[in-house]
Amino acid sequence: MGRLSDLFAPDTVALVGATDREGAVGRAILENLQSGFDGEIVPINPDRESVLGLECYPDVASAPPIDLAVVVVPPPIVLETIRELGEAGTDEVVVITAGFGETGSEGAERERKLRELATQYDLRVVGPNSLGIMSTPVGLNATFGPEDARDGSIAFMSQSGAFITAVLDWANEQGIGFRDVVSLGNKTVLDETDFVREWGDDSETDVVIGYLEGIDDGHEFVRTAREVTDETPVVLVKSGRTDAGAQAASSHTGAIAGSERAYEAGLEQAGVLRANSVQELFDYARALSGLPEPDGDGVAVVTNAGGPGVLTTDAIGDSSLEMADFTDETIDELAAAMPDEANVYNPIDAIGDADSDRFGDALEIALDDPNVSSAVVVSAPTAVLEYDRLAELVIEASEESGKPIVTCLMGGQRARAAEEVLREFGVPNYFDPSRAVAGLDALAHYREIRHQSIDEPTTFDVDRERARDVLERVRSRPDNRLGIESMELLEAYGIPTPDGEIVDDPGRALEVATSIDGDVVMKIVSPDISHKSDIGGVRIGVPDDAVEDSFEDIVARARNYQPDATILGVQVQEQVDLERATETIVGMNRDPQFGPLLLFGLGGIFVEILEDTSVRVAPIGESEGRAMIDEIQAAPLLRGARGREPADVDAVVETIQRLSQLVTDFPAILELDINPLVAGPDGVQAIDLRLTVDTEKL
Amino acid sequence: MGRLSDLFAPDTVALVGATDREGAVGRAILENLQSGFDGEIVPINPDRESVLGLECYPDVASAPPIDLAVVVVPPPIVLETIRELGEAGTDEVVVITAGFGETGSEGAERERKLRELATQYDLRVVGPNSLGIMSTPVGLNATFGPEDARDGSIAFMSQSGAFITAVLDWANEQGIGFRDVVSLGNKTVLDETDFVREWGDDSETDVVIGYLEGIDDGHEFVRTAREVTDETPVVLVKSGRTDAGAQAASSHTGAIAGSERAYEAGLEQAGVLRANSVQELFDYARALSGLPEPDGDGVAVVTNAGGPGVLTTDAIGDSSLEMADFTDETIDELAAAMPDEANVYNPIDAIGDADSDRFGDALEIALDDPNVSSAVVVSAPTAVLEYDRLAELVIEASEESGKPIVTCLMGGQRARAAEEVLREFGVPNYFDPSRAVAGLDALAHYREIRHQSIDEPTTFDVDRERARDVLERVRSRPDNRLGIESMELLEAYGIPTPDGEIVDDPGRALEVATSIDGDVVMKIVSPDISHKSDIGGVRIGVPDDAVEDSFEDIVARARNYQPDATILGVQVQEQVDLERATETIVGMNRDPQFGPLLLFGLGGIFVEILEDTSVRVAPIGESEGRAMIDEIQAAPLLRGARGREPADVDAVVETIQRLSQLVTDFPAILELDINPLVAGPDGVQAIDLRLTVDTEKL
Repeated sequence: MGRLSDLFAPDTVALVGATDREGAVGRAILENLQSGFDGEIVPINPDRESVLGLECYPDVASAPPIDLAVVVVPPPIVLETIRELGEAGTDEVVVITAGFGETGSEGAERERKLRELATQYDLRVVGPNSLGIMSTPVGLNATFGPEDARDGSIAFMSQSGAFITAVLDWANEQGIGFRDVVSLGNKTVLDETDFVREWGDDSETDVVIGYLEGIDDGHEFVRTAREVTDETPVVLVKSGRTDAGAQAASSHTGAIAGSERAYEAGLEQAGVLRANSVQELFDYARALSGLPEPDGDGVAVVTNAGGPGVLTTDAIGDSSLEMADFTDETIDELAAAMPDEANVYNPIDAIGDADSDRFGDALEIALDDPNVSSAVVVSAPTAVLEYDRLAELVIEASEESGKPIVTCLMGGQRARAAEEVLREFGVPNYFDPSRAVAGLDALAHYREIRHQSIDEPTTFDVDRERARDVLERVRSRPDNRLGIESMELLEAYGIPTPDGEIVDDPGRALEVATSIDGDVVMKIVSPDISHKSDIGGVRIGVPDDAVEDSFEDIVARARNYQPDATILGVQVQEQVDLERATETIVGMNRDPQFGPLLLFGLGGIFVEILEDTSVRVAPIGESEGRAMIDEIQAAPLLRGARGREPADVDAVVETIQRLSQLVTDFPAILELDINPLVAGPDGVQAIDLRLTVDTEKL
Repeated sequence: MGRLSDLFAPDTVALVGATDREGAVGRAILENLQSGFDGEIVPINPDRESVLGLECYPDVASAPPIDLAVVVVPPPIVLETIRELGEAGTDEVVVITAGFGETGSEGAERERKLRELATQYDLRVVGPNSLGIMSTPVGLNATFGPEDARDGSIAFMSQSGAFITAVLDWANEQGIGFRDVVSLGNKTVLDETDFVREWGDDSETDVVIGYLEGIDDGHEFVRTAREVTDETPVVLVKSGRTDAGAQAASSHTGAIAGSERAYEAGLEQAGVLRANSVQELFDYARALSGLPEPDGDGVAVVTNAGGPGVLTTDAIGDSSLEMADFTDETIDELAAAMPDEANVYNPIDAIGDADSDRFGDALEIALDDPNVSSAVVVSAPTAVLEYDRLAELVIEASEESGKPIVTCLMGGQRARAAEEVLREFGVPNYFDPSRAVAGLDALAHYREIRHQSIDEPTTFDVDRERARDVLERVRSRPDNRLGIESMELLEAYGIPTPDGEIVDDPGRALEVATSIDGDVVMKIVSPDISHKSDIGGVRIGVPDDAVEDSFEDIVARARNYQPDATILGVQVQEQVDLERATETIVGMNRDPQFGPLLLFGLGGIFVEILEDTSVRVAPIGESEGRAMIDEIQAAPLLRGARGREPADVDAVVETIQRLSQLVTDFPAILELDINPLVAGPDGVQAIDLRLTVDTEKL
């Protein structure tokens, strides 16, 4: 078995706070431990000599060596108990006791101390406020829940203990088994990232699933999960997706919720499959825990009933999968094996009088087709169809072909026994064709995740010192904002900006304008004036002979608008040919959990009205930068739709990557917007810039 | 009971083709009839004197009077049997026999004759190729399926017999009962519209559900269903939604599928709730068949478990419902009734040690709140919570408040008995919080359907004769197209067009231009040149002194491009101020099932790249016209986003209605596009027009 830690494979489990008092949590856990644990159980309680027939020790010090301690003593005694466990050399602790961060300031202080002690003694602590843990290979049920788990290969963590009790009974009934179950509680020490890592390293865990209300360190989670998901699928329900849900989650866990878009991007980048309901979570898990990886997206549908066959086809049309196109050979073979009325094209309809063997033949022929990578077997109950026999044939076909098959044997009781046979072999049966296809789709998504190459972020040659100097200027500002006067920041990171200069007299303005080909754009530069155009602070298409007058006029308007405004000068800038170019926005803000979140979109209505944007957690490599562009609906506009010249998309991708590097290098940058970044056929130019800097982090 | 027809309440049922031969369909039906039918069963078979203990008649003529005849004779004898039934005065017939339109030309001919006979004798025929029908109030099971239906108030029709057998066993297990079940078969005579009408008139039918692969007469269905859905909810799975599914459905039923967008619009306008899977169909049906109508969208969530509470809140966030905002009074009452650790804001968390009574109290207090229109009860199993008692309290709360409650009592076996208690009272229990909320959401959608006022189409004062004259011109065309030269068609229907005229010499061009204020637009008018701009056939901003030269130049370019093109002249048109206006597209095409389908969108990229359009089946009234605009994502642009002047939206709505009237008045118009229809602050103008006309229908 070779577990990497004693948490899930202890020889000795101590229960600190064991009791035989009816209704006590300490008794419920002990009974659960006694119900099946293979190793030694050590009750600890100073008031008992024995508990439920087991010798009881007065304290940790007098007990035999402990691999795993389960702590259920009252809140005020928890810290002392932890210290004793640390002194005694115990590594793994589960704290069931509640009354920590979830209850107010006293509890929060207790939780802080718990974390300190864990660090001091190098303790791995689950909880506090945990329902407990289970590990079926050693028969361990160290929870106070009413249910035991069935054996299986699914590792399951939950931030809600109730979620575990709510699904276990149902899962048992459905024949869904688990390897380990962990109630994460307050996640004071061990959190989702630790368990994803641990299960990722465990060869017997087929799939990791979880219910989470928040991820403490999104950045670390993404890094870890990305590695794990290369070998082991991870499926999560992350609740608090909607505004209402986020508010409810925050009041439930006391944690500040990160933004849903950050979770969406971060989990996607981590290769995590996301489920939106309990049913989806287990539907995906069942497919991912038992089926081989498909080698493509083509699906064969085999049915004895037209209607359900069409429903299945619709579900495939909705998914990332596609209906396989049969070869002529397959069609000939199917025609030879089936009656004339049958449909030998996909979906194969073996028609109502099909017995199990005809079904099996059709399935075997379909799976032989090189265009078929997986199959859905959908059946309506009939007088001639024996479900048990059909289940055997499905298993045979699956073994022979090595291709994944999911089934939808419709009908309640009639399908029960066959369902059990299929389950033993790892073939999930679903009640509804759309759920069967969703299971197969999860498998296809996971295949995509495994095979996608996530390139490392490119490290561009940049002038970090110059960038730091620009950022330092924020110290002289009343607020912590920088604007267009800081375009050098972009230049230092190799992001193109138009030729030009900020000048403070009309004469210099003219000199700069003369050195630039063609007309210029002039803009007031003032940290106090944000809507420059609205107050007449922007002039476009200024010919050289109007530059001096324009300077005076722009400054006068600014003074007039706000007499005490700090005016840093007037920017005289090369005029970009907007006819041939497209305005885009490249930006960043920092998420409390995931860190820098990059955003891309087309400017104007596309962002403001259509909300057509893509996001990623930085740092990103080239492929993710490119994906950010492909993801927006309006992407064809950049690529040259409707007779336009295509924009230099490579330059946009490079700009996003350079921005990724900038905001990763400088955690002091809290928010940054390049708006617009103009993308033309021959490259990009950043026209305007705004950022917010945290001087403490400089 | 008072059924409107004998189909579902016959006193005498004849089975033509009854037999006692093992494995025969005629025996399976007879056994099903004998298993529970309250009335008289009349077997008919010339080769038997008695069948399964019943006296058998040699033919229809010698049998006693028959209310309902079920026909299962071989295909060649079906027509003769139908004639005999017609002669004998039977009104209701179910044809089980297959081998009609679904099998080829011989079968299609037989089906055509069956339809003729039905018309001749005024017979109501279900099928052919039907599994049969059921009606639980009279114990009628006239199918050859293996299952009987439980009693209930759901009427269920299916275009796939297999779909019925596939769900009945499962439905029985779930305790889902039916009033009537109909396998529609080939729908030669009676179709979905007939049954929607019949069940709409039946006071005991709470909800109509169906599985359809196509709707034969979409227009008639919409008209009928719209009336029915005012009183009785209709939920349909219409399969073949996706391209792949449509292809599969078409090969399965042999019917030409209408477009999915037409179905989407038509079913929505008919007030039909659409389900996309078997599970959704029954999840909605369970909510709609047992619960009272909510009086608003505010939902209270009551739970004993934070996690599932957050999941439920997320599901509400995803739905059309909203989390109710409790009054201060409610919060005070909840605080008084519950322990300090409980959450008294919505979602109410009665916490893990809540017994059924605390749960019940919280529910009662919440339902008393005027902001609460419905409730979801979500529970994880605990040692202190008795599900049976909780079920009783839920029922009490539901009765006292008159507000709908759905439950999600999680846990498998533990919840079974409580679930049964709830079901008896009409409260649906769902395994997953998201499904519970979906059930409630279906109820809210149905409420919206019932309360929305669908205004009648406005009849504008139009010049129908002039329009007909314009359409007649198509007879002189080599193809059946008309273009910009036919703008009078729009004028005849009161749709504004710019001032101007089609002229055929430079002099007249100048006269027209002079009569128009400002510059003009000039366009070549030729049925043979569709991309006028590309060949230099359009000039904008032409001042009067350039009109004559432009005329020559435009004509020369057209000649040069295509020497043999028919040139109808050059259009000289008032130039519309596009700076202040927005380009829109208003169009129509004809769907084989639903008839004229109106389309609206903003021009250019919005339609071509973003596919941001809305559709409706004509004719429509003002409110639907307005909804077409509100539905598109880019609607804020018309309403004056980003500092623009708002367009005259009323004029756009009126144009859509006028077009609706035009295409309804003239079925000869197969397709029509006004592109662009320019919408400015002071009204709209149709700038260009194309249409296709079927001369046979003129």
